[in-house]
Amino acid sequence: MTKVILDVSLSLDGFSAGSNVDVAQPMGKDGERLHDWLSSTATEADSHVASELFSSAGAVVTGRRTFDVGIDRWGDDGAFGMPVFVLTHRDTPRLKKGPTTFTFVTDGIASSFEQAKSAARGKNIWLMGAADVAQQYLKAGLVDELLIHLAPVVLGAGKRFFESGLDQPLALERIRTIESASATHLTYRVIK
Amino acid sequence: MTKVILDVSLSLDGFSAGSNVDVAQPMGKDGERLHDWLSSTATEADSHVASELFSSAGAVVTGRRTFDVGIDRWGDDGAFGMPVFVLTHRDTPRLKKGPTTFTFVTDGIASSFEQAKSAARGKNIWLMGAADVAQQYLKAGLVDELLIHLAPVVLGAGKRFFESGLDQPLALERIRTIESASATHLTYRVIK
Repeated sequence: MTKVILDVSLSLDGFSAGSNVDVAQPMGKDGERLHDWLSSTATEADSHVASELFSSAGAVVTGRRTFDVGIDRWGDDGAFGMPVFVLTHRDTPRLKKGPTTFTFVTDGIASSFEQAKSAARGKNIWLMGAADVAQQYLKAGLVDELLIHLAPVVLGAGKRFFESGLDQPLALERIRTIESASATHLTYRVIK
Repeated sequence: MTKVILDVSLSLDGFSAGSNVDVAQPMGKDGERLHDWLSSTATEADSHVASELFSSAGAVVTGRRTFDVGIDRWGDDGAFGMPVFVLTHRDTPRLKKGPTTFTFVTDGIASSFEQAKSAARGKNIWLMGAADVAQQYLKAGLVDELLIHLAPVVLGAGKRFFESGLDQPLALERIRTIESASATHLTYRVIK
């Protein structure tokens, strides 16, 4: 059964990137610290978390900004090897990079969800990084699990991942904790 | 050796209380969920975390708001049984409740730290709850450990604990994780 997995690396103070995110600095100032668990310092535990997320996913949903700052780094094969749906207000033709297709969705999150669900063929939908997209999915009650990679740093400034604005609290159940020096990987199930 | 322990219960979206904190509702709307680990649903693990924090502390530092909404609930013995230093702009006479003394510090955090250190007699300084006081202690480099009780809830609104404004990121090392159904108790050492 397809689950929607919200995946994000966070500082202890709730930032998913440093300040001044741009193409040259996709994670913003000091933001690369949040991805130490994906870097050369990754442990076996970190790699397991990443590869499991990747292999269980059949489609990716993300935001335009994440696409814009990422695409040049994702290489000739588009990195994901699966359909990627990019929520945007700007109509953009589909882009194919080897086994990865980037489809730009301009008619809202419900449409992105339906398209991703169909493309995922029973595997999971990987909701990757983008704060505004995540917020909309959370508000719409579409998220099944949160996978938080909590980095051991108080960043002090940057892009806040969780905005205010839910109508009511979202109750969770922690179902797994995996620890490494670079992150605490916390998996929560959304109690619906 | 005296350590300064910053202790706070947080939602996954970084709130240390719900919205509309007042005397009738000291944790704000839905904020009591953050304290489930201190309530009747507490497990042995939760109780261990609480009692260890309490017994290792020789003095408490907190903020005026925390005092104002808490004092009536702390009972005739003042709940803490140790010296409590309340940072405030309003000069207020010292208050004694059984074995607990409340001293109001109007000359800033450095003074509160010196007074608490002296009063703690080698035990720890328990920096409790107040976001603005915590932020000032963090900026001043006075915090040795963070003890985060991460509740399994996205609160959606409330009082953000960590504000922006550090000059540079604060690097941490996770030194302990204790799990219960109501919280993930994460202890971080500040790397100085």
